[in-house]
Amino acid sequence: MEYKFSFELRVRFSETDAQQIVHNSKYLTYFEIGRVEYLRHLGVPYQQFRDKGYDFVLVVSHVEYKSPAVFDQLLRLQVRVEWLKRSSFQFNYTLADATKDFIVAEGYTIHATVDRTTLKPCHFPEDLCALVEKFEERPLRINS
Amino acid sequence: MEYKFSFELRVRFSETDAQQIVHNSKYLTYFEIGRVEYLRHLGVPYQQFRDKGYDFVLVVSHVEYKSPAVFDQLLRLQVRVEWLKRSSFQFNYTLADATKDFIVAEGYTIHATVDRTTLKPCHFPEDLCALVEKFEERPLRINS
Amino acid sequence: MEYKFSFELRVRFSETDAQQIVHNSKYLTYFEIGRVEYLRHLGVPYQQFRDKGYDFVLVVSHVEYKSPAVFDQLLRLQVRVEWLKRSSFQFNYTLADATKDFIVAEGYTIHATVDRTTLKPCHFPEDLCALVEKFEERPLRINS
Amino acid sequence: MEYKFSFELRVRFSETDAQQIVHNSKYLTYFEIGRVEYLRHLGVPYQQFRDKGYDFVLVVSHVEYKSPAVFDQLLRLQVRVEWLKRSSFQFNYTLADATKDFIVAEGYTIHATVDRTTLKPCHFPEDLCALVEKFEERPLRINS
Repeated sequence: MEYKFSFELRVRFSETDAQQIVHNSKYLTYFEIGRVEYLRHLGVPYQQFRDKGYDFVLVVSHVEYKSPAVFDQLLRLQVRVEWLKRSSFQFNYTLADATKDFIVAEGYTIHATVDRTTLKPCHFPEDLCALVEKFEERPLRINS
Repeated sequence: MEYKFSFELRVRFSETDAQQIVHNSKYLTYFEIGRVEYLRHLGVPYQQFRDKGYDFVLVVSHVEYKSPAVFDQLLRLQVRVEWLKRSSFQFNYTLADATKDFIVAEGYTIHATVDRTTLKPCHFPEDLCALVEKFEERPLRINS
Repeated sequence: MEYKFSFELRVRFSETDAQQIVHNSKYLTYFEIGRVEYLRHLGVPYQQFRDKGYDFVLVVSHVEYKSPAVFDQLLRLQVRVEWLKRSSFQFNYTLADATKDFIVAEGYTIHATVDRTTLKPCHFPEDLCALVEKFEERPLRINS
Repeated sequence: MEYKFSFELRVRFSETDAQQIVHNSKYLTYFEIGRVEYLRHLGVPYQQFRDKGYDFVLVVSHVEYKSPAVFDQLLRLQVRVEWLKRSSFQFNYTLADATKDFIVAEGYTIHATVDRTTLKPCHFPEDLCALVEKFEERPLRINS
């Protein structure tokens, strides 16, 4: 399945470790930037989502490390919403070298939609569902 | 399956994020500390392992977030080796509140054993296999 | 001037960088742990301080790097309050190798005391002033 | 004194802490990105500098926190070389809100030039000295 959104980011020195590669935990921060930029691209910045009284809670993260990234490497992160349930959803990610195109890492994260003040699960906002499905150009809603 | 090794760690302020909980990427650094302390407990510090010409490369990480940890919370991390293949192995982790015992997060990581200089896959050292199996008190080797 | 409080901490792999030493920014997180443990030692955990309606805001940080720390090194961090003004105070730190005693880094941080809700400057609580002076066994209050 | 180089960066969620502002240690990682981008702008990427057998060692860092940065804030980091000695040099930084222009933080870092393999102090490369002075349009060399 193809991705309709991607952006570039460059490895920072502070993200490397003594193996002289990007530390394994940093891929989760790259994925997080991916979610933020994906939502901004759709015209719904994450902060606006929070201002409406919603928040996301991370439920599962999964990373497969393919080829270690190194300092100053230019990367391309592809991001898509994989599915939407009543009160949860999944993002998929593919991180690749931006110039030579080989894959650095792949992964996914599953999130619950919660009421920002009570932190109780709540329905994923219907208008955002429609917006995401329109952008991804395929049905995303599955039963839950 | 029970764990034979665990240790306590306390949430640092720098590990929290603006949701006022521990940032999702920090659990991978907790797991990493878990591997280091597990090996130290078995009498084979990670550095000694590297001095012998071996290194670990992370292949997969997986985290399930159950209950968010907060600043200054005392946590107990349980660590075990789940299986050993010819040149890869899996660690499992359960992170819990150290005083009230509820689960904060669970996860696993899969690693490849590589030659430290060539970074090519190599056999997991036999003496360490035996040491881990003895400590875990069960057979861990599976075909690969 | 001597220190009356210190504690040990061990360098984590995630704190190293591609120069194979502890990343320069991590010393500030060590200093922060130092403040938290200092206050706990005095019987006034940072959280309790916040629960009383106060908070600290960092105003200045200064680090002098003497000898790079490396993965798994056991360090000893010495911490003291250097002075107290009406609504600000300074912590000093000396980080040393825990076994061989050579200095790794020195530094200080200056903090403002603020009302936790308004974030406006407020007087440093008098009872905590007295507690710190008693612990440090010297006058700390200077005009502001 | 004015700055001749600046660039924009956006606050990542992983850089915030439970005070809901950017963690104090992250400014040092911003400054580090500043050094890397400054050198790239001058046509001497940091990696090329290392390939020539040189490396930088951080000696002092100093940050003055003026106004806390928050998640998703667009910042502008100004960077300049302040002076060059025989085997050390200083960078100055001003971090400001990119749209409203108020100052977020200021600081400086002092670095030693070392031979990459021996880590012994060595002379700052003369051709890079000249390049930096030409870019900054003022004499930078001071006695040491």
